[in-house]
Amino acid sequence: MRGFLKKGLPEVGMMTPFKLTDELVAEIEQLIEYQKDSQLVSLLEEVHYADVAEIINELNALEATYLIKLLESDKTSDVLTELDDDVREAILNNLSSKEIAGELEELDTDDAADIVAELPQEIIQEVISEIEDREHAKDIVDLLRYDENSAGGLMAKELVRVNENWNVLTCVKEMRAQAENVTRVHSIYVVDDDEKLKGRLSLKDLLTTSTTAPIRNVYIPKVDSVNVNEKPEEVAKIMSKYDLEAIPVVDEIGRLVGRITIDDIVDVIREEADKDYQLAAGISQVVEADDSIWELTQARLPWLFLGLLGGVGAASIMGGFEEMLKEHAILFFFTPLIAAMAGNVGVQSSAIIVQGLANDDLKGSISNRLVKEMLLATLNGIILATILLFFSWWWYGNFFTALAISLSLVVVIIVAGIIGTFIPLFLDKRGIDPAIATGPFITTSNDIFGILIYFLIARLVLGL
Amino acid sequence: MRGFLKKGLPEVGMMTPFKLTDELVAEIEQLIEYQKDSQLVSLLEEVHYADVAEIINELNALEATYLIKLLESDKTSDVLTELDDDVREAILNNLSSKEIAGELEELDTDDAADIVAELPQEIIQEVISEIEDREHAKDIVDLLRYDENSAGGLMAKELVRVNENWNVLTCVKEMRAQAENVTRVHSIYVVDDDEKLKGRLSLKDLLTTSTTAPIRNVYIPKVDSVNVNEKPEEVAKIMSKYDLEAIPVVDEIGRLVGRITIDDIVDVIREEADKDYQLAAGISQVVEADDSIWELTQARLPWLFLGLLGGVGAASIMGGFEEMLKEHAILFFFTPLIAAMAGNVGVQSSAIIVQGLANDDLKGSISNRLVKEMLLATLNGIILATILLFFSWWWYGNFFTALAISLSLVVVIIVAGIIGTFIPLFLDKRGIDPAIATGPFITTSNDIFGILIYFLIARLVLGL
Repeated sequence: MRGFLKKGLPEVGMMTPFKLTDELVAEIEQLIEYQKDSQLVSLLEEVHYADVAEIINELNALEATYLIKLLESDKTSDVLTELDDDVREAILNNLSSKEIAGELEELDTDDAADIVAELPQEIIQEVISEIEDREHAKDIVDLLRYDENSAGGLMAKELVRVNENWNVLTCVKEMRAQAENVTRVHSIYVVDDDEKLKGRLSLKDLLTTSTTAPIRNVYIPKVDSVNVNEKPEEVAKIMSKYDLEAIPVVDEIGRLVGRITIDDIVDVIREEADKDYQLAAGISQVVEADDSIWELTQARLPWLFLGLLGGVGAASIMGGFEEMLKEHAILFFFTPLIAAMAGNVGVQSSAIIVQGLANDDLKGSISNRLVKEMLLATLNGIILATILLFFSWWWYGNFFTALAISLSLVVVIIVAGIIGTFIPLFLDKRGIDPAIATGPFITTSNDIFGILIYFLIARLVLGL
Repeated sequence: MRGFLKKGLPEVGMMTPFKLTDELVAEIEQLIEYQKDSQLVSLLEEVHYADVAEIINELNALEATYLIKLLESDKTSDVLTELDDDVREAILNNLSSKEIAGELEELDTDDAADIVAELPQEIIQEVISEIEDREHAKDIVDLLRYDENSAGGLMAKELVRVNENWNVLTCVKEMRAQAENVTRVHSIYVVDDDEKLKGRLSLKDLLTTSTTAPIRNVYIPKVDSVNVNEKPEEVAKIMSKYDLEAIPVVDEIGRLVGRITIDDIVDVIREEADKDYQLAAGISQVVEADDSIWELTQARLPWLFLGLLGGVGAASIMGGFEEMLKEHAILFFFTPLIAAMAGNVGVQSSAIIVQGLANDDLKGSISNRLVKEMLLATLNGIILATILLFFSWWWYGNFFTALAISLSLVVVIIVAGIIGTFIPLFLDKRGIDPAIATGPFITTSNDIFGILIYFLIARLVLGL
């Protein structure tokens, strides 16, 4: 009996991570060229939509469109959400409004709204009007009016809501109907007659509650929610701090308007981390290794230009101390060291502050932070300067020159640490993303200050 | 009726994010000093455990222990998991084995095992023996043997499992009993008589299936799983790529041994991002702004020392070109510029590669990458060098010196880009975390190479 029933079903096995190979892409291109539809369908049947998207990213627009039209739209709709922006745009250009509407029909409202927002203005209305499920179309249109960079822009309309005036029996019936459209239920939200969020019911509670009880007697009148205007990073912080898998979104007067799930938040966290990482590395807009040379240049050149200005500034400063060249050329040999140390210390201290700000775990006043960084920089500076003192004394044979270089290094490190600590705190107070401070911005300003301080102190110590 | 029933229950409202203030901490310290237990309990009753943990992190060990002993252990157990490591250690030192066991009793097995792993060896056995629920104790001990840095170290034993030979009715009964211990159900896993994972049942399916059907006819024989030895970063990649909220963990022969939920993965993603960010900023171990000066020094000094060595190397190279000082002092003024540009380009190109490797979206061969980076660096280099050419010509009045500086800059940028691209790819091939490459490592090596190339080309161009 068992063998008969399970015939044809694949055996469950260890999940072997999908690996995109050139051979696979070539095979699929071949099958498309010869229009081997049934072979394509069966080849891709067991492949997850996220992996199908990876394959399609490698195809040209015509091949990609062919595949999207060939496969079932319950799969292709999900594929569309995972594609690179430019590939998706090319495919949507090749689809009719009716075909696009068919894909949107299969998607959750949040993903559908994201795709609609990317369409050319002139076809949006037509696409929306082709969506057969009018409720779905209305929800998508509702979502379009929220700022992409807000809880409203992240949320989906799909959720299970029950009225506090129902009883458990009605509730279970209604819930079953609503659950059809909701991929993951998580929580059942309780609202009053004005749609205001009152509390929640957990699925587990529902499994163990008598069906005759009225909802208003059994629901939990405590539920975390976020305002529809909240920033995505804040939603991410709240959900990860409180270990929430879904959070309801309410409007300005407390009405339940949507729900954000943790999978969207995982994407927000990843994107935030990528952005901060790139800013720290001096890349001014989010790019990927596979972007075009022109896109990469646009992201990289501005910071390099800043670095160039800094270097020119440093050169001008050194030109101002030209008279020291004859007697103390060694001072000039150590300028890259001074600039590098100033840059490194600045980046280290600003990175710790930026991260503390991002994770909301900085306590205490700015002045306390600065004092602490000063002590820390002094400790590090003295250790490093002592090493440098002995080395440069041994190398150049002049103790006072060596002392001048080492003393300067200590001061440069302290100033660099203070600048690195102060700038992100200052930017944050002004409402500017402090992540911009780590990287070339700090490095460049510290290069200039470092070299200036270095020569001033050296001149003082050497009595020139 | 309604008013009566809901009397005393708090009104649901917008979630106002908890804000830790010095006043609140002072108030709580006061209440502890005067042992105002009932006031403390009612003050903290509505505060989320993650927020209670933030408060306790600010208290001394005695106050913290007082509070932990005072509050209900269903809350304090969760508080313990959220505390800073050193605070938790201090509190656990003040608790008896029986008290610790009481806290562990309330926790999911994964969190309990994490705490047990931190206890001193000599009391672990005693604590475990005090746990009343022997099944729970056994699960905790099972988890202890897994490497912290593996799927086994992340997973919990709590999950709902049903046998393929049961029918839906038995299954629902068993499930209800098991669900008591499982905070979030997500999926019901189906195993055979040997505990081998066969497939899954979704809660939603269960709501819409006749109770008389045998499980083996209704379950979905396709379920993603990870091996117990899989790295946490890999589990995170799989779960976020495929939008999973929970994934079952199987041992070497396919037996279901645990389950990882998305909230643990969110922590893994955050920690990975923090670690990579700090490595890029030249911080060699994960630290926070509030760590001690000594801890921060340990994390920061090694990279600064590397920077010092690099600077000394650069100084030695410049010493080798001392003969150029007389005629072309300006060359020496531009060394910080050259070093900064070499460093910036290296960090930019390595950051993009490191991120591409982390997100698994680098396709194509290493040589293709290097050619692309070379083209990109050449384009950026020519733009920047042209600007520098005119500036230094205007400033110094000597076209050939300006040309020498600018030509060198182009070559330095190209070499820096190639080094920045190659090193992370090389480290990754060798199984070393490429994130270590971005930051001081690249900056330092590029400083040295940059300055060497610069002077060699300058000497060539100026015919010295």
